[in-house]
Amino acid sequence: MRFISQTSLDGVTQRLFTLGEVPGVLWTPEGAHEPRPLILMGHGGGQHKTAPGVVARARRFVTEGGFAVVALDAPDHGDRPKTEEFARIAADLRGGMAAGEDVTARLGAMHAHLSGRAVPEWRAVLTAVQELDDVGAGPVGYWGMSMGCGLGIPFVAAEPRVRAAVLGLLGAHGLTGSAALVTVPVRFLLQWDDDLVPRAEGLALFDALASADKTLHANPGGHGEIPESETGSALRFFARHLG
Amino acid sequence: MRFISQTSLDGVTQRLFTLGEVPGVLWTPEGAHEPRPLILMGHGGGQHKTAPGVVARARRFVTEGGFAVVALDAPDHGDRPKTEEFARIAADLRGGMAAGEDVTARLGAMHAHLSGRAVPEWRAVLTAVQELDDVGAGPVGYWGMSMGCGLGIPFVAAEPRVRAAVLGLLGAHGLTGSAALVTVPVRFLLQWDDDLVPRAEGLALFDALASADKTLHANPGGHGEIPESETGSALRFFARHLG
Repeated sequence: MRFISQTSLDGVTQRLFTLGEVPGVLWTPEGAHEPRPLILMGHGGGQHKTAPGVVARARRFVTEGGFAVVALDAPDHGDRPKTEEFARIAADLRGGMAAGEDVTARLGAMHAHLSGRAVPEWRAVLTAVQELDDVGAGPVGYWGMSMGCGLGIPFVAAEPRVRAAVLGLLGAHGLTGSAALVTVPVRFLLQWDDDLVPRAEGLALFDALASADKTLHANPGGHGEIPESETGSALRFFARHLG
Repeated sequence: MRFISQTSLDGVTQRLFTLGEVPGVLWTPEGAHEPRPLILMGHGGGQHKTAPGVVARARRFVTEGGFAVVALDAPDHGDRPKTEEFARIAADLRGGMAAGEDVTARLGAMHAHLSGRAVPEWRAVLTAVQELDDVGAGPVGYWGMSMGCGLGIPFVAAEPRVRAAVLGLLGAHGLTGSAALVTVPVRFLLQWDDDLVPRAEGLALFDALASADKTLHANPGGHGEIPESETGSALRFFARHLG
C-alpha cells in the first residue's frame, strides 16, 4: 500500500493511495490515531472514487459517525485504463439507455464482467487498510448503489469481515445467487420511479437477499434522486450495527 | 370533552376522557403546561385505545419526542357497543381469515363501513384536544397501521390540520380514491411476509398516495411483526415534520 498524498479539510483527512494497480482513497477524522469502524464505499457506473456524491457522503460518515471510509476506482473506471472489451460493453449499455430500452440484462452483464476483478481488489484493500493504526481490525460496513451494489453483493457474499451493508438502485438480474449468500443486516434503497431499474427487478433483489435483518426504503424519484435524509438514516444504521 | 381519570407513571400523564359517545385517552409529559405537537394514533382491528402496543408507542412519543398523543376507541371497538351489522361483518372477516382466504375485499368493506363514523369523530376530538393548554393548536401528525391506516387515510385526506402521517400494513382495495387526496409527507410501513395483506396490494397503496414526500419501509416478517427500530424512525420522522 503506497500513499500518494495527504490533505485535511474541515476535520477530515483524505489520503490517496494505490495498492498494486488499484487507486484508492481513505478518509479519517483529522488527527485520529485510534482504531475505528470502517465503511467501504463503492461508486456508481461511470463514476470514480472521488465523485462529488461519494466525497460528500464519506465526509458525513467521518464527521458525524467517526468512521473511516475507503473508496476505490472500480475496474475500468476513474484513473484506471479501460480495456477494449469494457469499452464495447459500456458503449452497448449507453446505446440501449439512449434508445430507452430495458437495459437490465446489459447492466447485469457489465457488473458480472467487472466483479471478477473488483471482489479480490476490495478484499486485498480491506486487509491492507485494517493494518493502519487509525483504522484497525474492527467492524466493517459496505455502502454501494447501482454498480456499487452490483459489485458489492458478490463482495459482501464472499467477505465475512463485512458485518452490515447499505445497497440498492439495482435489480435482481444475475445477482440472485450472490444475494442468497448475503446474511448480514442490509438496508436496501429503491427509487420508486427509477428510469433505469424496473421497480419489480429492484423489489426482487431485495427479496433475494438472505438476511433476516433487512429493510427496504423506497422513495419517489428517478435513479439518482435518493433523498438526503437517507444519508443520515444510513449513518444510524451503520452506527447500530458497527458501533 | 369530559375527563374521567388522570394518572401519571414514569413521567407520562394519562387522561381518559369521553367526547360525546367516543372514549379516548390523552398522554402528555407529566407536569407540562405549554403547547406541543400532537400525534393522533389509530389502533388496529379488534384492538382498542389502550392496547399494549398503542400505550408503549405513545409513551415513547411522549418521553422521547415531547409530543402529546391521543388514541380513541374506533367505532364498534373497545368500550363502545357493537352494532349487529358490525358483528356480522367482523364474523365474516374472522371466518375468512381462519379459512386462509384472501380477505382483502372484506377488510376494505369493514373499514369503509367504519370510516363514515370514525372520520368525523377524529375531527371533533382534534378540535377539542387542541383547546387544552398543554396541547394547543400546533402541528398534528397521524399514526395508524392496518385498520388504523384504513380509517386514517380517509381522515388524513379530509383533515388539513394533519401535516404528516405514518401509515401501513394495508392494501389499496377501496382506498385509492382517498389515497390520491393525501399530499402530506407519509412514512409507509409494509411487512414483506404479511399473511393478511398481499404484498402487491400494500405496494399499490403506497403507490396511490399523492404525497411528493413519501417513503416506504419494508421489513421481513408477518402482519404484526414491525421491528422496534421503526418506532424510533417514526419519532424522527414526526420530529422532522412537526418540530
